Amino acid sequence: MENKTNTIKMALLGLGTVGGGVYKLIQRRSDGMEKNVGANLEITKILVHNMEKKREGVDASLLTDQWKDIIEDDEIQIVIELMGGIEPAKTMILEALHAGKHVVSANKDLIAAHGKELLDAAEEGNCDFLFEAAVAGGIPIIRPLKQCLAGNEITEVIGIVNGTTNYILTKMFEDHMDFAEALAKATELGYAEADPTADIEGLDAGRKVAIMASIAFHSRVVFSDVYTEGITKITSRDIEYAKEFDSVIKLLGVARNTEKGIEAGVYPMLLHKDHPLASVRDSFNAVFVHGDAVDDAMFYGRGAGEFPTASAVVGDIMDVARNLKYQCNGRISCTCYRDTPIKSFDDVKNKFFLRMQVANEPGVLACIAKVFGDHKVSIARVVQKNATKEQAELVIVTDVVKEYHLKDALNELQSIESIKEVSSVIREY
Amino acid sequence: MENKTNTIKMALLGLGTVGGGVYKLIQRRSDGMEKNVGANLEITKILVHNMEKKREGVDASLLTDQWKDIIEDDEIQIVIELMGGIEPAKTMILEALHAGKHVVSANKDLIAAHGKELLDAAEEGNCDFLFEAAVAGGIPIIRPLKQCLAGNEITEVIGIVNGTTNYILTKMFEDHMDFAEALAKATELGYAEADPTADIEGLDAGRKVAIMASIAFHSRVVFSDVYTEGITKITSRDIEYAKEFDSVIKLLGVARNTEKGIEAGVYPMLLHKDHPLASVRDSFNAVFVHGDAVDDAMFYGRGAGEFPTASAVVGDIMDVARNLKYQCNGRISCTCYRDTPIKSFDDVKNKFFLRMQVANEPGVLACIAKVFGDHKVSIARVVQKNATKEQAELVIVTDVVKEYHLKDALNELQSIESIKEVSSVIREY
Repeated sequence: MENKTNTIKMALLGLGTVGGGVYKLIQRRSDGMEKNVGANLEITKILVHNMEKKREGVDASLLTDQWKDIIEDDEIQIVIELMGGIEPAKTMILEALHAGKHVVSANKDLIAAHGKELLDAAEEGNCDFLFEAAVAGGIPIIRPLKQCLAGNEITEVIGIVNGTTNYILTKMFEDHMDFAEALAKATELGYAEADPTADIEGLDAGRKVAIMASIAFHSRVVFSDVYTEGITKITSRDIEYAKEFDSVIKLLGVARNTEKGIEAGVYPMLLHKDHPLASVRDSFNAVFVHGDAVDDAMFYGRGAGEFPTASAVVGDIMDVARNLKYQCNGRISCTCYRDTPIKSFDDVKNKFFLRMQVANEPGVLACIAKVFGDHKVSIARVVQKNATKEQAELVIVTDVVKEYHLKDALNELQSIESIKEVSSVIREY
Repeated sequence: MENKTNTIKMALLGLGTVGGGVYKLIQRRSDGMEKNVGANLEITKILVHNMEKKREGVDASLLTDQWKDIIEDDEIQIVIELMGGIEPAKTMILEALHAGKHVVSANKDLIAAHGKELLDAAEEGNCDFLFEAAVAGGIPIIRPLKQCLAGNEITEVIGIVNGTTNYILTKMFEDHMDFAEALAKATELGYAEADPTADIEGLDAGRKVAIMASIAFHSRVVFSDVYTEGITKITSRDIEYAKEFDSVIKLLGVARNTEKGIEAGVYPMLLHKDHPLASVRDSFNAVFVHGDAVDDAMFYGRGAGEFPTASAVVGDIMDVARNLKYQCNGRISCTCYRDTPIKSFDDVKNKFFLRMQVANEPGVLACIAKVFGDHKVSIARVVQKNATKEQAELVIVTDVVKEYHLKDALNELQSIESIKEVSSVIREY
């Protein structure tokens, strides 16, 4: 039974879109697997909620709704967690690692909140805990950061890491849709979920930023450290101005390692069209990295979807298989060996694009300039448009200023009668 | 002497641009190294040609011009080969691997020709032989292909993998320079070498294509399997047409795994501006990959230079260090477990952009169309311009045709009197 001993048995937790993709991809790749990683891979159990549900193409005898069938099965060496959410995923992963089983997961919510606990458990048990699929789907980013770019002091990681919002912003930019229309289109195509909050408010991207920043800067960043702001307030008018400024508007996850600590945030930004991230269209994702040796690098591809995500999961599984062959599991575990403070978002510096409606009367600009000056906000550019007899639209682009200075200035502007409305406050890269 | 035992000693072969970068980067990263990979890294010997040359910032006591000082030093565990060229690099690497020393190399010429022999030697000795820096400099591409994307059947790898030619083509496109002018500029800036042949004739890119294709398709492709064509014939006029067709012209390394074998070539191509590779400007490199699971992915960054290349080399060194810690060297070696035939370039299919000067008289187009039809070349588009009384410029874009059909058609066109000149033959992506 030589073949038997050369087979690694695995359990799948969850058989949704990604779980189904992983199941199919493992089967599709079975031919070359042993030659490539030294062993065959076999999914022998699949944990599902609903045993009654019809599942096309899946061997029904593998299904179970009992976690103990898996955790107590000593033959299972790898647990592939694709359920998502904090619990019961967290408990199951910890139990698996404590039992000496290796774990591959795509669970960004869990890792962004409890990564340290999970990686510690893996390290204790000399187990692999890999999660390439948790950030930017199919795009290789975790292994490149942990290994290929390990010789760098990475100072900046900027990503378009949410496909739904990038699709929406692309439609607004290229097809002149407004936000509601573009969101409806995204929902129709299945890019946006029934409740799109996590996507359009930047929460999903924020979790990925936490994970990437932790790896890039060797210091733990959790989701609650990440400032998040979504794209719901972006209007067609903002997009028009972006075009006029040779820029696009993208929802960016921004992580920087500065002298005064780590900055981590997600927010829409005006980005000049020559920046490599500016040409990332539709539901594609990309992560831009700056390191002191490599200079600029970018990783581009599909950030979600059945097979792109399965690609990352199966890559991880094959790495675990190689580690099993060479008995070196746990070879790359937590790389957070520093304890860098997180900078308060108030102290983060940004340029701002401000669009406001003001009374069309002499002295308004002088008045605004004084308020800004008082708050150390210096102005890089002013454009006035759409002036009627009573009112005009004023666009001001600031120099780099601290968030709290800008906030204070905007607060003071509100008390000035000739400023009718601050319509948009968008950061500029 | 705990510190001593926890230090991995290394030898550097070559102290040119990249060697100097690696030396400096290893020193710059010394602080976090042990925490990151479990050991300190120390370069204890450096092989150089000229012992007399003054070398700023390098400890002169490390220098030697004797290979035996290194190969016979049992304390040296890693040899970093950055001399380039076939010999003596090949002999030294083989001797190092046979002596149980791990090797990191950036030598594309050598690997594209003798990769199998080197990887076999590494495998025999359970040694690591890593060469991330040999393809696209600082851009992580080999590890992503071997590991992250291992779950894919990769069908296409297309790269802008030569910075010199991409810089020249960018200058021609954006600044309206002609080829000679752009080459002169590249030389002035140090992007082009005194003898630029290897760059502008596509040889350098061809070596990288051979290496990438071997890894992506799990089947050995050597440099002599790669068809190469350079950019010296590209004119400003071709660039003008590319713009008119919403395209750019890029020197692309193209590798495809088709049912009838592996295609591997390097040639200039018209590429639509919406393709992610089209926005890769100046001396930047990028590699675009299509896999059956991941769909499209792209890796972008600096393909050359002191520190970008050192970034890749040091990443490899750190991986060897981790393997030493876990005693799993040789964990990822040759992954060419298939033996796919190389397709004759004559049988490769491409679209073509053809620019020709023809007599301005009735029936010429019909005549050309007949020749093309006789050779199974179908025409997608025809544009006529610059017509004088005697002569006109005709641009024909073909559908996808076999290389040899196009070649035969062009040969026959030469015997037709009303065709004055075929000025350009450029493939279209």
